[in-house]
Amino acid sequence: MDALEKKSHRYCVIMCGGVGSRFWPFSRSNRPKQFLDFFGTGRSLLQLTYDRMLPITDPERIILVTNSAYYDIIREQLPEVKEENILLEPARRNTAPCVCWAAHHILALDPEASIVTLPSDHLILRESEFHSVILKGLEFVEGGDRLLTIGLKPTSPHTGYGYIQRGEPVGDAGDIMKVKSFTEKPNLEMAKVFLSTGEFFWNSGMFMWRADSILRAFDKYDPETATIFDAGEGAFGTPGEMVFIDKAFPNAPSISIDYAIMEKADNVYVETADLGWSDLGTWNALYDCSPKTPERNVTQNCKVMAHDCEGTLFAASPDKIVVAAGLKDYIVADRGNALLIYPLAEEQKIRQVVNEVLARFGEDYV
Amino acid sequence: MDALEKKSHRYCVIMCGGVGSRFWPFSRSNRPKQFLDFFGTGRSLLQLTYDRMLPITDPERIILVTNSAYYDIIREQLPEVKEENILLEPARRNTAPCVCWAAHHILALDPEASIVTLPSDHLILRESEFHSVILKGLEFVEGGDRLLTIGLKPTSPHTGYGYIQRGEPVGDAGDIMKVKSFTEKPNLEMAKVFLSTGEFFWNSGMFMWRADSILRAFDKYDPETATIFDAGEGAFGTPGEMVFIDKAFPNAPSISIDYAIMEKADNVYVETADLGWSDLGTWNALYDCSPKTPERNVTQNCKVMAHDCEGTLFAASPDKIVVAAGLKDYIVADRGNALLIYPLAEEQKIRQVVNEVLARFGEDYV
Repeated sequence: MDALEKKSHRYCVIMCGGVGSRFWPFSRSNRPKQFLDFFGTGRSLLQLTYDRMLPITDPERIILVTNSAYYDIIREQLPEVKEENILLEPARRNTAPCVCWAAHHILALDPEASIVTLPSDHLILRESEFHSVILKGLEFVEGGDRLLTIGLKPTSPHTGYGYIQRGEPVGDAGDIMKVKSFTEKPNLEMAKVFLSTGEFFWNSGMFMWRADSILRAFDKYDPETATIFDAGEGAFGTPGEMVFIDKAFPNAPSISIDYAIMEKADNVYVETADLGWSDLGTWNALYDCSPKTPERNVTQNCKVMAHDCEGTLFAASPDKIVVAAGLKDYIVADRGNALLIYPLAEEQKIRQVVNEVLARFGEDYV
Repeated sequence: MDALEKKSHRYCVIMCGGVGSRFWPFSRSNRPKQFLDFFGTGRSLLQLTYDRMLPITDPERIILVTNSAYYDIIREQLPEVKEENILLEPARRNTAPCVCWAAHHILALDPEASIVTLPSDHLILRESEFHSVILKGLEFVEGGDRLLTIGLKPTSPHTGYGYIQRGEPVGDAGDIMKVKSFTEKPNLEMAKVFLSTGEFFWNSGMFMWRADSILRAFDKYDPETATIFDAGEGAFGTPGEMVFIDKAFPNAPSISIDYAIMEKADNVYVETADLGWSDLGTWNALYDCSPKTPERNVTQNCKVMAHDCEGTLFAASPDKIVVAAGLKDYIVADRGNALLIYPLAEEQKIRQVVNEVLARFGEDYV
């Protein structure tokens, strides 16, 4: 197979159905994080993810899997994506059902397909390194029955990420290895040990595999999900696909691809990389990866006049001015009908705050 | 003269041309404090001032003196006021030129006129007491060549107000007295002494006099201003009035009525009153006169979820929710394209902040 032919079998699945309240009031239930233009670049995280894949695969082989609630916003943000490339999940499940459906869908279109599966709401600063890593990873999974995850070189003992422990290298390049173990989010002490060993990498949630490989893994390691989707054999890639999905998908268990497959399979590999990556999972993560003033303040898009403020993240719309004094280590986030002024150190409470806002003031505010 | 005839000679001048940046971002250069509905009652402070005078005098004898910049907003807020009752100052001066012009204007309409002159941006909670005080004061000034100011019973040693020291009572009612002295804003120690003597009252900026009395006082105590407006004799109350004013008014000195007349004249009296009054001159003043939660927080119109906040004033539009944690003694004021988060104790800096905003970001923000 020459390079062009290989490219013609390469698909990308962008998972963009997630909801998330941790960035409230910037993210809203009808406009979660992946649809936001966090950095004022003019492109949302989803759009950036899409753009980033264009050198790897043709647009007609980029599949978006999302919740039906986000159909309109996806049409608005990515009007160039063909209708048939948007897979609308009829119910909120976790990543395993999403991955399984997408693999069936793609396999029906191309039995030789390999797939890059990506979250839609992460930050990647080193784009050309990303391209090299993906291309190398695709070559690797196309060469056999292999499940590959990208492990990111950790830059701090972060307790908000899962870690992957690398095992023996495969081949001679040295940056693809067998996975020795997956670990849940560690405590700080453990994370420091992880970092010191040099064996642990952040679990990025980016995966590569052949369509047939991942479906074989479902059959073996997550037969419950496999059985549900196997029943659609013959419907995938046909007009009957959505009829089947609307009926079957809600029966799928809510389970992550890590838990369903990656932590169990024996053909799992990790490709290590340094991508300038953040999952932007929290206001703190956004704060960490943003440029700072000498007083360690961060300004997201808006105009700010800060007197005697330190370590504070200001986020508002570009036409807004925020004047603040005396804030230390705060989030100030203003968007539409909601304003949040909260200590950065207590951001884990924001999820609960949003639930309280919903209960007391209704869904217009979340 | 019977009551009805008296009423037909009673005029009210509402001074509503003031600009003021201390309530930024609620007050804006194109919508100063008097045009704001601070308490969410559906009526602005100006509208409330107008409404409050209706039992005292007929609407056709309520004159608004304002800056030409505010013509549109006055038309919007008080459409029932006749065109000829809106006096548009062609330049920003202080209160003396405003008072002098209005007196000439009214005298030309009615040589028997008495005038209540009022600021447009104060809070008065005890409305029926206000009516009694005004009616009694009008009777007093209509009976002679007297200049009367209302002195408010002080409820605290406030350092933001001027004080009036009362002298000998006039007549037997006991609440109208000669003025012994006017004082500038005192320091706290002095204000406490003032309070303890029982002789000092807050200078409200509300005045009553006959039109001819105040003009006689101008001739005697502020001949510079008097000369400028005396030149318009014959034009007042005619179509030529505005032609004259547009030419003459800008030549008037910028001087307050207190400084020009009240502190110098020997026929100045004070009527003491307890009106539930605040000049709402500062965020702190607004805070002080607003109902509070057990944590001493104040909510102006908007929805608030405050965790671990104390002594904080939240002001935003009614459809906005503010979620805040850990703020002690702050102003949080959000309006349009500007958000202010500032320690209440430092509010005297807000004026300077607004100047800085203007210099750095332009007039759209002030």
